Amino acid sequence: MSSSSSRYLWLLKRSLLIFGLGIILFLLRSVSLDADFVSLKSKRPGPVAAAHVLKLLPEEQLKNLFSYDGIWLFPKNQCKCEATTQLRGYNFQDAYSQRDLPAVRVRRQAEFEHFQRREGLPRPPPLLAPPNLPFGYPVHGVEVMPLHTVPIPGLQFEGPHAPTYEVTLTASLGTLNTLADTSDSVVQGRGQKQLTISTSDRKLLNFILRHVTYTSTVYQRHRVDMVSLASSTSVVKFPVTICHPIIPKLHDPGPERKLKDLVTIATKTFLRPHQLMTMLQSIRQYYPDLTVIVTDDSKEPLKIDDKHVEYYTMPFGKGWFAGRNLAISQVTTKYVLWVDDDFLFINKTKIEVLVDVLEKTELDVVGGSVLGNVFQFKLLLEQSENGDCLHKRSGSFQPLDGFPSCVVTSGVVNFFLAHTERLQRVGFDPRLQRVAHSEFFIDGLGILLVGSCPEVIIGHQPRSQVQDPELAALQKTYNTYRANTNAQVQYKLALHYFKNHLQCST
Amino acid sequence: MSSSSSRYLWLLKRSLLIFGLGIILFLLRSVSLDADFVSLKSKRPGPVAAAHVLKLLPEEQLKNLFSYDGIWLFPKNQCKCEATTQLRGYNFQDAYSQRDLPAVRVRRQAEFEHFQRREGLPRPPPLLAPPNLPFGYPVHGVEVMPLHTVPIPGLQFEGPHAPTYEVTLTASLGTLNTLADTSDSVVQGRGQKQLTISTSDRKLLNFILRHVTYTSTVYQRHRVDMVSLASSTSVVKFPVTICHPIIPKLHDPGPERKLKDLVTIATKTFLRPHQLMTMLQSIRQYYPDLTVIVTDDSKEPLKIDDKHVEYYTMPFGKGWFAGRNLAISQVTTKYVLWVDDDFLFINKTKIEVLVDVLEKTELDVVGGSVLGNVFQFKLLLEQSENGDCLHKRSGSFQPLDGFPSCVVTSGVVNFFLAHTERLQRVGFDPRLQRVAHSEFFIDGLGILLVGSCPEVIIGHQPRSQVQDPELAALQKTYNTYRANTNAQVQYKLALHYFKNHLQCST
Repeated sequence: MSSSSSRYLWLLKRSLLIFGLGIILFLLRSVSLDADFVSLKSKRPGPVAAAHVLKLLPEEQLKNLFSYDGIWLFPKNQCKCEATTQLRGYNFQDAYSQRDLPAVRVRRQAEFEHFQRREGLPRPPPLLAPPNLPFGYPVHGVEVMPLHTVPIPGLQFEGPHAPTYEVTLTASLGTLNTLADTSDSVVQGRGQKQLTISTSDRKLLNFILRHVTYTSTVYQRHRVDMVSLASSTSVVKFPVTICHPIIPKLHDPGPERKLKDLVTIATKTFLRPHQLMTMLQSIRQYYPDLTVIVTDDSKEPLKIDDKHVEYYTMPFGKGWFAGRNLAISQVTTKYVLWVDDDFLFINKTKIEVLVDVLEKTELDVVGGSVLGNVFQFKLLLEQSENGDCLHKRSGSFQPLDGFPSCVVTSGVVNFFLAHTERLQRVGFDPRLQRVAHSEFFIDGLGILLVGSCPEVIIGHQPRSQVQDPELAALQKTYNTYRANTNAQVQYKLALHYFKNHLQCST
Repeated sequence: MSSSSSRYLWLLKRSLLIFGLGIILFLLRSVSLDADFVSLKSKRPGPVAAAHVLKLLPEEQLKNLFSYDGIWLFPKNQCKCEATTQLRGYNFQDAYSQRDLPAVRVRRQAEFEHFQRREGLPRPPPLLAPPNLPFGYPVHGVEVMPLHTVPIPGLQFEGPHAPTYEVTLTASLGTLNTLADTSDSVVQGRGQKQLTISTSDRKLLNFILRHVTYTSTVYQRHRVDMVSLASSTSVVKFPVTICHPIIPKLHDPGPERKLKDLVTIATKTFLRPHQLMTMLQSIRQYYPDLTVIVTDDSKEPLKIDDKHVEYYTMPFGKGWFAGRNLAISQVTTKYVLWVDDDFLFINKTKIEVLVDVLEKTELDVVGGSVLGNVFQFKLLLEQSENGDCLHKRSGSFQPLDGFPSCVVTSGVVNFFLAHTERLQRVGFDPRLQRVAHSEFFIDGLGILLVGSCPEVIIGHQPRSQVQDPELAALQKTYNTYRANTNAQVQYKLALHYFKNHLQCST
């Protein structure tokens, strides 16, 4: 070996040695860092050791964390209704005979699927944005009316520089375009479901992206189109919601905002003409010109001598909720005040206060109290594949913003002011012929926001035996219709099972 | 200098030389690539020059691209209704006197704001995801019921490695937690509006993130909470929608799916008892046991001897739509078939076909044709700050999936089958007392999906002079009520202005 090569070898060995020492030093350094950490950790307790056990909180703790009013809400697959010493539980399928139940189940599932299909349910699952992508895009909120066009905001490319860029947008329920004025070699597929941008000019690419438009091409009600944006290495997706806004149904209160142009009073009566007349007289003491709509399914029609009363007769005994639904179908004012035919207007029965509450908040319904009896209940729904669980608890959710003596709840007494349009939207189910109350608020779940202002009070005529033999006969008949028989209870439970897709309630 | 060190220096110089040459070669190589590109580009025409002019398409071209049925839809700030030789235009504010209009405008704006507030409108603007962030998160679709809890899917951290990580989640309409079982030093703020995760264990960080939960704390109807996810260098935001699902209102068709358990026929009559009876007889020829609801605001009540007819009287002349609304308020079946009192059932009047269409599609309403007269119109809405523009055009949007002889449209004749619940939800405005038709479909915009199957045909009783002197007198009175007076036209235009927040129509 020549002296130069041996010198070279020596240099090589030296380099390797230095290199090796470097590695060792580096390793030692990180070890000492860890050691620092370890010593730090021993000062405050903390699970930072490298081999960490990944576990979830135990069920008991979850029950403590995620309950409302003692109802455990999350995380659960199936809901159940458990009766306790204080709470009754109902399982609605028990309202059907064993023999009928299987077929009823099948029918209910078919109807439910029809309903879901028409509501655009279930909504598509959440769209997850993986990290570290080169694109900017709208995460939420792009909406377009059917057959209309919208600009898609926020599209941009911030990826690595390249000699040329090719970006493709793809839609399925609409077509794409861009407001940017370019040649066809740069943008291809204008007005098609796939738009391709090819350019080496990054500024131009982003200019085109900034002005991309989406045009809905099919007339549909509620759909979500997942539009994809792709380069050679990455793909992102973002949602465009195709939906039609609900056209408003506003009421003109008139230049003087007279109460009679804002509020109609509605009531239903049955075999209690004396009480109805007493109630009407009490209204006129305080509100001489408000329109009162009376629906009556008694045997004999009444003669009511009041030019502001609209009187409607119905087939005999057609029913409680049928009459309520008829009454509200005739209201032409923004608000309707519901009262029962045996109430009594007193000087605390201030309709103006209830109007003020609805005008200033987002509530749809606000109830008062009957003779100071504050009746409020909350409804909590748990959704589940084989029918939902409904939990009814007395009380309220929270105070009403701006009205400290009022609260937000789910159900109130039969003395309430409501937005007519919203009330008509829920409706009173004409199948409920005799005793019914909470069914209306249950039908209103998801539609009505309900409040209660107990300081607005209406009186109640006492139940007393009437002297007049004709009226007494009517009263006797009335009482037979008021009995909540077992058959009626079963009917209402079965209705909850099928109509509201409920499993049970507590 | 010793020979070893000079050898070493020589090696060093050689290395530097080689390194320098390498760099030069590399630079040359990229230059030649660009040169290749330039030569390629000169072969095909294309605006790839570096200094590109960024311009948008001219308005004329936009009008071509983004119109439907000749109506230019986008991009526009304000909508207008331009009358043409073929189309009449109406500006609804003209229905008010000059003196009243300013006050009406103010009132309408106040009512509109009230409506918007209650609908949770306008929705928050689109959330834009800037590129190149280290986080993964749900882009769209996380929904939670008021007071309930949901897991937030898709949260992850993929940023650069660091000795320690600190990630903070912040909400405003709810509280945050995680199902991961960790000590308080790693996760702070459980059950609060701000959750902080501090750890040096990347796997643990992502485990905790994967199990983050959101709990809604206020009972509200429709709100969007923008939740933020932040590290020391980056922030992302994603939406969580708080909303309550609408409780279903399903109808049980019964084990045999009898038509009478599925469909109720509804009609309104006024001063045409002979035509009503003819119509009823024609129904009974084909459908002996379907329930028929008749609402009547004539002077004298009728005696109808048919145990499947429900008959309701109303105050005299209360009105066309009031009577329609009353009729549908009494329906207890899934579907309601609307017919006018002067129609005639013939053998092509196949209700079963209409039922089949509604059962199998997402339509809410499906119309037939009257004596082969196919009446269909489309409604297109343009939204605008000072009232929307409504465009009515005859024809249909597209064929109906699965039913090639049927189409999707916006309005049909007064012979249609509808989902009762949806019909009640729109309602027939009782303020429309005399002539009205399209108003119902306009009120249904955004709620009803309407179809037309012209092969299902109903007959129409001819308008003829009656011999009977009593009936002739009634007919004379009837004709006076049917006249669409100027005052009535003005009233309806004013109603469109205020109620529907419309500016104009073509």
